[in-house]
Order: sequence, then structure tokens, then C-alpha cells
Amino acid sequence: MRNLIPVPLTSDAFAQFGEVIDLATAKQIPINYGSTTRFNDLATIDTGDENGRTLINVFRSRPVSLPHTVKIMERHPLGSQAFLSMSDIAFLVLVAPPVQTVHADDLELFITDGRQGVNFYKNTWHHYQLVLGRQTDFVVIDRGGRGENLVEVELRGEAQILAEDLPESGDL
Amino acid sequence: MRNLIPVPLTSDAFAQFGEVIDLATAKQIPINYGSTTRFNDLATIDTGDENGRTLINVFRSRPVSLPHTVKIMERHPLGSQAFLSMSDIAFLVLVAPPVQTVHADDLELFITDGRQGVNFYKNTWHHYQLVLGRQTDFVVIDRGGRGENLVEVELRGEAQILAEDLPESGDL
Repeated sequence: MRNLIPVPLTSDAFAQFGEVIDLATAKQIPINYGSTTRFNDLATIDTGDENGRTLINVFRSRPVSLPHTVKIMERHPLGSQAFLSMSDIAFLVLVAPPVQTVHADDLELFITDGRQGVNFYKNTWHHYQLVLGRQTDFVVIDRGGRGENLVEVELRGEAQILAEDLPESGDL
Repeated sequence: MRNLIPVPLTSDAFAQFGEVIDLATAKQIPINYGSTTRFNDLATIDTGDENGRTLINVFRSRPVSLPHTVKIMERHPLGSQAFLSMSDIAFLVLVAPPVQTVHADDLELFITDGRQGVNFYKNTWHHYQLVLGRQTDFVVIDRGGRGENLVEVELRGEAQILAEDLPESGDL
């Protein structure tokens, strides 16, 4: 059984899986005669072929119960999927490269700093949302339209996330 | 001088200007093995011609100072623009139909209930964000890419928003 230890989410470490959405590094444009700051173009939205269109959704996610055994990974072959948190609660981001089958050894676990979001590239294997602490809403931008955009696989091998392997919330 | 009195934002009253984004009326889909509720497809994103792409942004808006005299209205001829509030603060939505010039008599003023968002249709005249109370972040989904997507006009006639014409925050 592999124990997954989260590492801080950074753009470099996450580059093969997708983009980190981060106001702290975004381009800031003053607009509306100075009354608004526009944090511009935070993620590259990919809706795939001509059948795709941008979907805007809110995901209301209950916190993961720990310890959590990883059983299923999913990917979206037709488009990207972006998550912007509407709270300041950190969440876990569990991913694997776009291999055909996913083994416990392929997994990489990240933890956000409570302000970051992520945008998964098309075909990046990821776990469903692993929210810490309390129920949290996310704005999710993904792809709608004709075509099957969800693939799930069972994890090969064994992996788990333990409460004692997470940083104290005060450390984030 | 016309004094603009806000009316509650409803989908019917707003239909000619755009869509009301409202989790209370959205389609809810349980996903992620019951751990998440997906409020699905909240707004119709329109990025216009083949040069357009979806932009994801955050707008950080300072509250409007009242009384506020309306001077400028704007519209986006190449795409829609959606606003999802990241707080529970009500905001004002000031719009006009897609006439060529905008007169004070054309204006319609709405107020959200603190949970609603809006998606302006292409070419709907609107005022820049009129946030009440305190600085608020919005997730904004609009159109990027080649082409000029901002038109501004000076209001003809005179209109203003007075603090005493707004509901008490406890009434929302």
C-alpha cells in the first residue's frame, strides 16, 4: 500500500497535468475607471472539436473522509476542466500522466494553498475532488456537447491518503 | 434627473438582456459517488466568431460610492459576459436594450439577492459593476481573441442612483 504525501502545488510541478490558477501570478488590468482589477485570462479553456461548447457549473463538494483509499481515476478526453475555489479551504489534487492504465506508482498528490485553482488538460487522469475540512463550492469550467467526455479506470495497485500525512491547516 | 429604483432580479424581467445565474433553479446532478452536487450548465457562453475563445477571469471590484451619477454604458459586440459572485453581497445590474444610443429613459436597474449572477448577452448595454457594501470578487467568463469587443457610449439625459432608493441589506 502506497501512502500518498502531498506536495505544494506549483505551476512547474503541475506543468504536465495542467495549469495552476493563481491570482497572485495573474496579469492584473485596472478597468472600469479604476473601480475594478481584472485578473485576466486565468486558464486555457479547451472544448475540443466543433461539437464542444463551454459549460459553466458550480460543484458543491463535501470533504473527503480520511483515511481515503484511492479506487477510481477519471479523465476527460474531449476537453479541459478548470476549478476555481469559492472559499479559502485547501484541497488535494491527485493526478497521473495520460498513460493507458493507472498504477499506484503513477500517482502524484498536490495540495493547494487555499487560494489556487487548477485546470486539468484534456486526458489528464485525476481523482474526483478531495476537499479538506468542510463543504466547498467551486466554479467549474468544462466541456459540454455531443461525445463521451468521461473515462474512469480502477486503480492498479493500492494507494491511500492518511490524515497524518497532511500539513496542519495552520501551515498552509 | 431620473432616479433609478432597483427591482429584484428575475429571469423573466431580465430575459431580453441576458440570463440570471442561480443555483436555486439550476439542474442538480449528483456526481463523484455522491460526494459532489453539480449545478450544471449555468450560462450560455457565446464567444462569437471563429476568432473567439473563452476567457476565465476574476474581477475584484470596489463598492460603488453613492449617490452615483450614470455617465457611461458599455457593450460587448463579440460575445457574452457572465458574472458569478464569490461572496454573498448583493450587486446592482444596470442595463439597456441594444439600441444605438442610450438615453436615461432606456435604463433598467436590477438588484441581485446576493446569490444570483448574471450573463449579459452580446450587445446588451450595461454599466460596469456596481457592487454594494464592500469589495467583492467575481468569476467572469467572457470572450478573448482578435477583434474589438468593447464599445462605450455616454449616456444621453441624466440618471442617478441614490442610497435611499436601495433596500436595507437586511431586506434582501
